[in-house]
Amino acid sequence: MKIARFSHDSAISFGILDEDEEELIVLAGDPMFAGFDTTGERVSLNSAKLLAPVIPRSKIVGIGKNYSDHAAEMGGEAPSEPLVFLKPNTAIIGPDEPIILPPDSQQVDFEGELAVVIGSVARNVRAEDAAEVIFGYTIANDVTARDLQRSDGQWTRAKGFDTFCPIGPVIETELQWDELSIETRVNGKLQQSGNTGDMVHGVPEIVAYVSRIFTLLPGDLILTGTPSGIGPIAHGDTVAIDIQGIGTLFSPVAAR
Amino acid sequence: MKIARFSHDSAISFGILDEDEEELIVLAGDPMFAGFDTTGERVSLNSAKLLAPVIPRSKIVGIGKNYSDHAAEMGGEAPSEPLVFLKPNTAIIGPDEPIILPPDSQQVDFEGELAVVIGSVARNVRAEDAAEVIFGYTIANDVTARDLQRSDGQWTRAKGFDTFCPIGPVIETELQWDELSIETRVNGKLQQSGNTGDMVHGVPEIVAYVSRIFTLLPGDLILTGTPSGIGPIAHGDTVAIDIQGIGTLFSPVAAR
Repeated sequence: MKIARFSHDSAISFGILDEDEEELIVLAGDPMFAGFDTTGERVSLNSAKLLAPVIPRSKIVGIGKNYSDHAAEMGGEAPSEPLVFLKPNTAIIGPDEPIILPPDSQQVDFEGELAVVIGSVARNVRAEDAAEVIFGYTIANDVTARDLQRSDGQWTRAKGFDTFCPIGPVIETELQWDELSIETRVNGKLQQSGNTGDMVHGVPEIVAYVSRIFTLLPGDLILTGTPSGIGPIAHGDTVAIDIQGIGTLFSPVAAR
Repeated sequence: MKIARFSHDSAISFGILDEDEEELIVLAGDPMFAGFDTTGERVSLNSAKLLAPVIPRSKIVGIGKNYSDHAAEMGGEAPSEPLVFLKPNTAIIGPDEPIILPPDSQQVDFEGELAVVIGSVARNVRAEDAAEVIFGYTIANDVTARDLQRSDGQWTRAKGFDTFCPIGPVIETELQWDELSIETRVNGKLQQSGNTGDMVHGVPEIVAYVSRIFTLLPGDLILTGTPSGIGPIAHGDTVAIDIQGIGTLFSPVAAR
């Protein structure tokens, strides 16, 4: 099931995308908290503006260097344990909203990633129980100011700017996470072509590891790392990230 | 004015501490959003349980190595620009709540710090305007798993565990931030004795720098760094951090 959050006639609602992906079946509330009761209304996808499908109240957790080929292009190896960092919820934007390039950086890179949407309070979850705390999956762009990442040491600034976490277009609630093609195009040109089966640390292991550190709350996101092929974006570019079974996340790029 | 958040008779309220610091003048709502209207009730401080005075909806921003003497004890120099990291809001606990030592670390340290409480949406604030977006100040303990901080490189895990951000006991809304003694005691023994006037990057400069990276939201916290004298804590210890003009933040320590 594909869940969208959208605005239509100046109201914000959640909806289920119908099978033809032409209409949204309007939900009575946020399905993460209120279930899947429908209002009886339908809204055509064309007339709805899709929004970020979730705004975390707590954490966007990132996992660094989680594909060997990307770790290699960064000049290292994938770490033996998941390498955890945080992005703030103020970095979230929705589909088709612009990534704004900050003047403080001379090199901002895209990073296409599968994002896990947490659905319940989760603490010390065992890997074999991870599916129970996962609401679904979406696409994320872990936008990174590569020059500041190198010079700062800590990655917080480089990955934390406003607009540096586009997510969407929908949350897919039924997805086998471990064999999905993931492709990123800039202005139509293929730049990343990976498969989630190549993650060094898989989704259940990551959920277990992260929930040993901090309690995960409903709506928290875990970005599971990017395959090789990352590269810079510039004013006027359009980034498109495809993940099999979810859809395509488009983001225009603009200078501040 | 000293603002507390507290529970009493199973209700949670905000209150202003009276001059004798014996009673709480109960407020009608959260003063950050609803102003300082009072309900007419008073609650004796003895019968109230003080809670964390704020739970950030977005960010706890930390500033690393912001006192030269602490940077030196860590084996380096204070960076020329503020060194920014994030702690998740799930790390927040209130006064007298226990810091829980995670089994993954063999060395957990206290770090007494002055914390800035942001009061309004703040983006690209100039240093000279910083006071306009500050609601007040409280005390924070930037609890850090020192061994994991070293081995991980990124500080997220080391500083992010549940209970690793005790704050309180109150928010002081009228405070000159730049000449306050800050002292940390473990089991009554003085360990840190600094002065906020020795910060490398002062509060206005930090607010300006951080708000250039990400939009700050009401309730966000900025932890301004710790003076020298940090050290380990163990099961059964009690940490007490005093900051002149705010009060004392007590935290017992317990093994998980």
